[in-house]
This record gives sequence, structure tokens and C-alpha cells, in this order.
Amino acid sequence: MAERIFGHIPGVAVGTLFANRRELSTAGVHRPVQAGICGSGKEGAESIVVSGGYRDDEDHGDLVIYTGHGGNDPATKKQVSHQEFHVGNKGLAISCDSGLPVRLVRGANGDPAHSPTEGYRYDGLFTVTRYWPETGLDGFRIWRFELCRFEDPTESTGHSVAEDHLAGSTQPAPREQATVQRIVRNTSIGTRVKALHDYRCQICETRIETLAGPYAEAAHIRPLGRPHNGPDVESNVLCLCPNCHVEFDRLAIYVSNDFVYSALTGERTNRLRTVRRHVIDARQLEYQKGLCQTNGNQ
Amino acid sequence: MAERIFGHIPGVAVGTLFANRRELSTAGVHRPVQAGICGSGKEGAESIVVSGGYRDDEDHGDLVIYTGHGGNDPATKKQVSHQEFHVGNKGLAISCDSGLPVRLVRGANGDPAHSPTEGYRYDGLFTVTRYWPETGLDGFRIWRFELCRFEDPTESTGHSVAEDHLAGSTQPAPREQATVQRIVRNTSIGTRVKALHDYRCQICETRIETLAGPYAEAAHIRPLGRPHNGPDVESNVLCLCPNCHVEFDRLAIYVSNDFVYSALTGERTNRLRTVRRHVIDARQLEYQKGLCQTNGNQ
Repeated sequence: MAERIFGHIPGVAVGTLFANRRELSTAGVHRPVQAGICGSGKEGAESIVVSGGYRDDEDHGDLVIYTGHGGNDPATKKQVSHQEFHVGNKGLAISCDSGLPVRLVRGANGDPAHSPTEGYRYDGLFTVTRYWPETGLDGFRIWRFELCRFEDPTESTGHSVAEDHLAGSTQPAPREQATVQRIVRNTSIGTRVKALHDYRCQICETRIETLAGPYAEAAHIRPLGRPHNGPDVESNVLCLCPNCHVEFDRLAIYVSNDFVYSALTGERTNRLRTVRRHVIDARQLEYQKGLCQTNGNQ
Repeated sequence: MAERIFGHIPGVAVGTLFANRRELSTAGVHRPVQAGICGSGKEGAESIVVSGGYRDDEDHGDLVIYTGHGGNDPATKKQVSHQEFHVGNKGLAISCDSGLPVRLVRGANGDPAHSPTEGYRYDGLFTVTRYWPETGLDGFRIWRFELCRFEDPTESTGHSVAEDHLAGSTQPAPREQATVQRIVRNTSIGTRVKALHDYRCQICETRIETLAGPYAEAAHIRPLGRPHNGPDVESNVLCLCPNCHVEFDRLAIYVSNDFVYSALTGERTNRLRTVRRHVIDARQLEYQKGLCQTNGNQ
């Protein structure tokens, strides 16, 4: 198998149309002629095809909630078994952790609002911003991936505004220079919660000091935005250090009855520190725990 | 003093021109009529004026290397003493750590390539992506701030592409919903270095496990891009956990003779773990140490 190319395929412009999967494969845009994900559980995923193959898919244009592969009956499009966390599914998760860009291809059978009328269209680079398992419409475990376009669609370089500016260059940097691995957002609610905890991690008690003062991150327990639609309220936010934040968002830990558990081993680790003025909504903790536990690791 | 507004001033479009500082102040875009930074060492900075007042300023349009305030002789524009890390200077650092947006105003005396021909122009929201002290052209310590436009200039909402997509919304989210606090970039070099260290932090030995495997971050010792222009090579990269990465990038720690020191207290903490196949360039460590030590805390 040829070496994986992460990013644009040289000579293939965003918007290029292909008559069928064979042409897509020959062009190297999406090499497998059947599978919706081209990737491995070692290196990451290089491309996906969004073509309405899964009932759980959501296509919002620049935001796609994509269903992993496996356990699907092509004839009925129904799930007939659980999806496993391996091959392409694990590949997309690795792409999330490493920030590797994923080529997104849309097929004519996808959401009419965003899909070509016939054949397949290369729609450019997306990054996997979040992944989680859930029980799909048919009652089986599916893996879900939030993909966001992370580039200025008007830019032919396929380079994100943020990347170029952070690279400190007014010229687009070479595609391989940098991909975005992690973006930490903050909200005014988050700022209040961090202050309530004096910027000390509620899980491990770490308090990072910088010249500008203490540093902590606000972690939304139930994520904001589609499809989780968690509320941006104090009771849905934890004050965490970056390390615990990564583990919490990546579903490696969850909180149950005031204790922190490893979602990988199931063992109990720390107690979650709380303060009276910061009430935490147990339902949101249950929601995040649900994401951790649906993964079948336990 | 009125409550601070972080973000756009309602009713003031990007590109709005003002005849003088008084008009700028009345409109609330930049309230002080003299100071170049409107901010405090407690809450952060809400706006800055770039008008060629400091010889060390660099204006690259969507990227600005801004000099903090203090110690400057308005008549000669020369530094006559060190700049302190307080008030607006500390405010801009806090805005960096919290991701608060900063209104950027350009005056006619700034870089002709990006400045209005007369008066002052509101040029929209920027985020402080990095800060460090250095010895300026006149031999005194100055504080420097890298500001990047973090929004799609074509978007009237003043909302960044990344924010909206990460918020999982195709409609612009309210400005206060989220600001970007931290962006972690990865490069192919970084991926190699992380693998060489088996994703274990070279400073604290932390190894974060997620469903997708181990997670670590690649920290460039001498930053990429202007004005540091560090090289993207293995010898300029460390494998760190997110916590140590924040401390390293925020100049709270540095490495000297294989040991890690706190830039805040000067005390020696851990030993930097190295592996034979990953040679680290001592000159780059010296460069980062220099950034830490110029700050005058020692």
C-alpha cells in the first residue's frame, strides 16, 4: 500500500468531481473503493466518504457528525451489530489526537443540502475535533466523530487562518508545517469557575503558575454544540489542569459519586474536589460517564 | 471606570475611522487617550493602539508583534528604562492565557502598509498568542506580544471560523460563548519526537492514555515563525505533557545543563530525560532560557 498522504493530494483542487469510487481511488483522494474511511489504527485516517451510508450521520456543511464503520447492513443501512474501536474508527480518533487533516469526500447519496447531484466531490480538509461512542438509532454501539472544516474555504492553499497566523507567517506555510492538535476554548462561565477554584485542578490539585498568574482550563462536562448541546453554565463546567482536561475530553476518565474513575481500567483514582459556591450538575456527569462507558471497554 | 468590554463594541464596525484619540475614547473602542494599552494586571487587556510609538513594533497585517508600555521617551521614541510586567503589559499576558479577544486600533503613524492615512482605524479583534520579554533595540528590557487576527475578516460577526465550527454551530455563536485560550499545533517532526519518547513527558514522565493511545505534545524550544524563527527540526522539539508544555511556552520553566528550572523561583526541579536517538540543540535551550531570564524576575 502506498505511503499515506495526510492533507491535499497534489493537483486535486477542492471541489473536484469524480464519477465513481474507482476514479476517487485512482486519484488517490480516497483509495478504498468500498470502505468509507481510509485509515489505520496505527497511523490515523487520511480520508472519509460521506454518502448517506449511515442513518446516524449529520451533515451541517462545515461541521459533520460522522459515523464510524462496521456493523452496518448496506442493503437496509441499519446497524446489525456494535461497531468496534479499530481500523478506521481508531484511525479517526488518532487523527483527532494528532491534529492530522482528513480529506472529506461527499457522494450524491448524502445530505442533499451539501452533496453533489451525482458522483463524488472532494470537499477539502477537515479536522476531527471530538470522538465518542453512543447507542445509535438501531440500538447498537456506533462511533461518532465530529469533523470541522479547519481552513478558510476561500484559500486555495487549504491552510487555516489560525495556522498561518500562529506560524507567524503572512505567506501560507507549507501544509506539513503544522496541524492543529488541540484547541482549548474558554467562556465567561469558564473564567468564573476557574476563579472559584483558584485555578486549581479539581481532579489532581495541580495549579500551574505562569508569569501572568495561575493557569487552568475550563472543561465542559457535557460538550457545547451539536450533537451534545451541553449548556454553558457553571454547573456544567469543571476547573481542570490541561492534563486532566485532555483525559476528560478524550473520555479516558469520568466522575461518578464524587470520585474519578479511569474509563480504560475502571479503577477509582482521585476524589473530585468541590467548593460550596460551585454546584455541579450530576446529570451532566452522568452524560459524560455514559460516553465513556458506551465504548465497551468495560 | 466603566466595566471592561472584551470583544467588539456594539455598533462599531471593523474599519471604522476616528479622527483622533478623543473620538476613539468616546466610542469606547480604546478608552485611554494616551496609553497604548487599555487593560489591567487583574482582568486582562481590552484594546491596544498600534501607531508606531515603539521602534520595536512589527506590523505584518494579520500578525502584529507589539511592544508593551513603559520606559519609552515619546519625543525620541527610544527606550530609556526597562519595561515592567504590570498593568497593560501583564493585562496582555492575562489575555493570552485566557484567550480574551483584544481590539486592535491602528494609527496613521504606524506601518504605512497597514495603517490608515490619517487618524485611527478600528481593525477588529486579535488574540494574544504568545508573550515574552527581550532586550530591545535600545538595550532595555521590553515586553513583546504576538497578536494574531483570530477571525474571518469577511465575517461581520467578528467570529472566528474555528470558534464557530468548534462550537458545533453553523450560525455564529454569541461572542461571549467562547474565546480560544490555547491552540496546540503539531508537525510531522513533532510526531516523530513524540514517538521517540513513547509519548512520555521529558520533564515529569507523565504519559496520558486515551482510547486512541498515548497522548503527548511536541513543544518547539525556540518558537516557529516571526520573530523567533525557530527551526522545525527534531533538535528543536521536546516531548511534553500538556501541563509542562503550558509552563514551557509561558516561560515559567527552562532547561539548563539537562536540568529543569523554575523561571519564577529559580529553583531546580526535574532532570530533563533524553534518549540517544533524539539529540537536543543546546543553543535552542539557551534561547528559550534567555526569554525566561530577561524578565527580570531573578
